[in-house]
Amino acid sequence: MPGRHSLRFDSADETLARAAWSRLAEPGDVKVASLLAEVGPTEALRALVTRDVDWMQRYLTRLPELDPPRDLRALASLGGRVLVPGDAEWPTGLNQLAAPPPCLWVRGPVELADLARRSVSVVGARASTAYGEHVAGELSSGLAGRGFAVVSGLAYGIDGTAHRAALGSGTSVAVVAGGVDRAYPRGHDALMAELVRSGAVVSEVPPGSAPTRSRFLQRNRLIAAMTSGTVVVEAAVRSGALSTARAAATLGRPVGAVPGPVTSSSSAGCHALVREGRAVLVTDAAEVADLVGRIGADAVDPPRGGAGPFDGLDDVTLRVVDALPVRTGRPLDRLCVASGLEPATVQVALGRLALLGLAERHAHGWRRVPAGRRPPA
Amino acid sequence: MPGRHSLRFDSADETLARAAWSRLAEPGDVKVASLLAEVGPTEALRALVTRDVDWMQRYLTRLPELDPPRDLRALASLGGRVLVPGDAEWPTGLNQLAAPPPCLWVRGPVELADLARRSVSVVGARASTAYGEHVAGELSSGLAGRGFAVVSGLAYGIDGTAHRAALGSGTSVAVVAGGVDRAYPRGHDALMAELVRSGAVVSEVPPGSAPTRSRFLQRNRLIAAMTSGTVVVEAAVRSGALSTARAAATLGRPVGAVPGPVTSSSSAGCHALVREGRAVLVTDAAEVADLVGRIGADAVDPPRGGAGPFDGLDDVTLRVVDALPVRTGRPLDRLCVASGLEPATVQVALGRLALLGLAERHAHGWRRVPAGRRPPA
Repeated sequence: MPGRHSLRFDSADETLARAAWSRLAEPGDVKVASLLAEVGPTEALRALVTRDVDWMQRYLTRLPELDPPRDLRALASLGGRVLVPGDAEWPTGLNQLAAPPPCLWVRGPVELADLARRSVSVVGARASTAYGEHVAGELSSGLAGRGFAVVSGLAYGIDGTAHRAALGSGTSVAVVAGGVDRAYPRGHDALMAELVRSGAVVSEVPPGSAPTRSRFLQRNRLIAAMTSGTVVVEAAVRSGALSTARAAATLGRPVGAVPGPVTSSSSAGCHALVREGRAVLVTDAAEVADLVGRIGADAVDPPRGGAGPFDGLDDVTLRVVDALPVRTGRPLDRLCVASGLEPATVQVALGRLALLGLAERHAHGWRRVPAGRRPPA
Repeated sequence: MPGRHSLRFDSADETLARAAWSRLAEPGDVKVASLLAEVGPTEALRALVTRDVDWMQRYLTRLPELDPPRDLRALASLGGRVLVPGDAEWPTGLNQLAAPPPCLWVRGPVELADLARRSVSVVGARASTAYGEHVAGELSSGLAGRGFAVVSGLAYGIDGTAHRAALGSGTSVAVVAGGVDRAYPRGHDALMAELVRSGAVVSEVPPGSAPTRSRFLQRNRLIAAMTSGTVVVEAAVRSGALSTARAAATLGRPVGAVPGPVTSSSSAGCHALVREGRAVLVTDAAEVADLVGRIGADAVDPPRGGAGPFDGLDDVTLRVVDALPVRTGRPLDRLCVASGLEPATVQVALGRLALLGLAERHAHGWRRVPAGRRPPA
């Protein structure tokens, strides 16, 4: 390697310098992130090319091929834009990360800064079940319909279902592990095109970059940091989706997990999150909105079944109800024995029940009013 | 009604007097239970027949037909026994109830006092699904195989499945709402016969008593009080099984709930229990055994000096720590009140504390992780 490199671009341009760092350093590199925060991207580049700093040797390997103006042109030809910290559109949630990305490569009309206010990441297993896909679809369309942008990772399974359902009734954003110039997996070409048209596709690596294993993992921290909360729909116990949940929890963002059959290994990771207190159990979009939404603006009522006709009656009256036959009438003295109550008490209860349309005189006694003639509860 | 009744039995005999009260008063009658605790069953009977006490008038209706020796003979002819408080076999957990039963009517060889040490109630919907029955079977045979007696209510659905599976690999006990002389539902005749042969069937009402609505509800408190923990397998949002869970939580017994598909209304009650922090999510017999086996194993917090595990937490999180109890769990809504914070904020703080190994779900809520299991500060 030569002793001193010359850069083929204006390294004093902050955007070009950040674009350079997004190719030189791998996502999640804490040392580089600290250096950028301390001295800025252009000074950090100078330190690299002058080989002033010993630990920076490793970044020299990519220096010869470095050409950020080419990367920016490639993005511009796709109608995309680069965001750097300080831009109005920069998602400030990223600044909470130990290693914020040097810049973001973005395609699509959605303003990323808006995500912080009202967005949910819906993530889960690639190896999803029909159940998981159904729930991901219901949640995502419900959240999108409530004005939440649904953020996910463009993968097969839960991610893809979440994007599609959200696009049907609102906004969706994909954060991907490779470059934004082409879809991974390729089978999601058309879905990515739709996200570019009406949502957004975001990456921290330049166009042309391959989605590697470590980039997938690091990508998950961006999903967590860019959204106001995370929901895991289906995840096996070692699913990558759990790393998104972990990242969200570390950042203090609410995390929800959707339960499923205990017989399904695809739900085991979700159940573990809830058991360990790392996630709140959620069953529908309203509960997710409640979890993620600000100060009760999306508060949810606990689920209730329909009220029964005998709900709200006091214990004594219920005992008389229990003593009342359904078909033929029962005389007062038998009602007293059956209910264990004295005649005066039974009579008061019968009067109350008659007023409510729940008991009636019949033959030589009393019976319940048949269900078909009862008033609505 | 005549001014003064004469009793056709030796009302000075405590067992006969308690058997009499179990026919005179409905299950859960707090007034009678208090009277029995204060003056004893024979003196309480005397007060009734002499009409000394005004509020006791209602119990006179059943007096003419009262014949506890006949009830005891009926039970004896079935090979059963009556238990009263103070008997070696009396389940002392019942004494925690606001209204303990005057006596228990029991058939079957299992010693009820043993239940307190190692038993789980497995309860759930009558309208169960194939999924719920599968899980109830797996849980119950797994628990019975681990030496836990499985207690349930002999109903169709989850109850019946739990009994059958437990009988296959261990012990099972049914607590029923009517008399122990015949099965309700009748379709569980053979199952009840098997429980009488190798387990136990228990009731607080005498032979011949009908299972009424209020007796079903009161029966649930017995199931909760006689066992070391309760698991709800499937329950709609208005299921009676939730009253067993509530009773168990009130008594400080651990409660577990099995999740299921969010698309199944039969699991909605279980999900609500977990969401509200009233139950721990459990997925298999090992997790239930862990939950129930934890009773009394909690370490005492030693006095602290020097750097504590809670040092360095922000003010809001510390307020939640201060609100967390050391032993039994506290539900989310109480934590909000105690800390003066809104639910979303408390949930975020709990998530952070759980990640740090400082808080955990316990019984019906959250508590601090006992000092012995905390990570080093």
